[in-house]
Amino acid sequence: MADGRMDRGEDRPKRKNDPAGLRERVLETAFGLFQAQGYNATSVQELIAAAGVTGGALHHHFPTKKMIGLAVIRERVAPAVEETWLGPVRESADARAAILGVFATLADELDRNGAVRGCPVNNLTLELAFADPDFRSELRILFDRWRETLAKALGAGSDRRAAMVVAAYSGAMAIAKVEQRGEPLRLCAQELERLL
Amino acid sequence: MADGRMDRGEDRPKRKNDPAGLRERVLETAFGLFQAQGYNATSVQELIAAAGVTGGALHHHFPTKKMIGLAVIRERVAPAVEETWLGPVRESADARAAILGVFATLADELDRNGAVRGCPVNNLTLELAFADPDFRSELRILFDRWRETLAKALGAGSDRRAAMVVAAYSGAMAIAKVEQRGEPLRLCAQELERLL
Repeated sequence: MADGRMDRGEDRPKRKNDPAGLRERVLETAFGLFQAQGYNATSVQELIAAAGVTGGALHHHFPTKKMIGLAVIRERVAPAVEETWLGPVRESADARAAILGVFATLADELDRNGAVRGCPVNNLTLELAFADPDFRSELRILFDRWRETLAKALGAGSDRRAAMVVAAYSGAMAIAKVEQRGEPLRLCAQELERLL
Repeated sequence: MADGRMDRGEDRPKRKNDPAGLRERVLETAFGLFQAQGYNATSVQELIAAAGVTGGALHHHFPTKKMIGLAVIRERVAPAVEETWLGPVRESADARAAILGVFATLADELDRNGAVRGCPVNNLTLELAFADPDFRSELRILFDRWRETLAKALGAGSDRRAAMVVAAYSGAMAIAKVEQRGEPLRLCAQELERLL
């Protein structure tokens, strides 16, 4: 959800006749570029060069740039939410501790990285959710699942608290991005402790 | 902060030899386009056409696109934060009620508009704050002033609560943008009531 999983792909050997590997490499490279500079700032030409693929091969897998964006949401951003947020909360016997743990882990990770690219769900939402209904629908699925998973883990009557956790995290990551440090996540987690 | 002040400018008469008016018209048009589709999705050519100015006149006032972006932050986004958030909180004898009032007012406004373009501070931050240090510095000024004004109004020892208010609002606006309705702001305000 934060900046992990950003720099993979470039280490992979480039094999010929490996269409599945090529598709994955395009998605991983696109995810990294979208996180670093945004969807609209990334041209297909730049992506072709950065992924080390031919234009023909890229267009075979993704006839339009938008198809790359939607696949990045489904196949990179959604698994990142699962790995960072939903998995730990679902697997923990103590949802409250798990939620506060995610804030703490990510704050430390941001400070260790020394760079905050932000939450990919929120980055793409603020860039694309008003202008494009297809991106909006795809991103809304992630926000809905996120809130519902937290509400289920926190127990009956916690829908509103779950919405607040997602909002506080999303906003704290925006502030972390402008401050380039994890501290805003820690401040918000301390306030959430009183609510949860 | 939400979607108000978006459609002004087009009603103004276009006068010749009115450099100040022309500059304002460029900024107002740019603010509207950035809110609707983002900074990177807006080309200078599109801005020239939408503002009804010549390329020469635009470049006279703003030699680079980035100068337009920075001026929009200083001269449009900062006053919007002041008008929507800081003014009402500063002028109220009851900071808590004023803060909750901003959430309620904006939620109603978003539902009335039937369209959520989002908070311009957060939109520009998530799009630009990692990629460009100049945008980051300019946007950080707004976040710092926002939090400090809330903390001062809420009274001694409220720095963390003020940070939480800004984060909850920022995140709630992201969710409002993906849901295209004001409800997320209401849910978060109800949780904030318990904290403030």
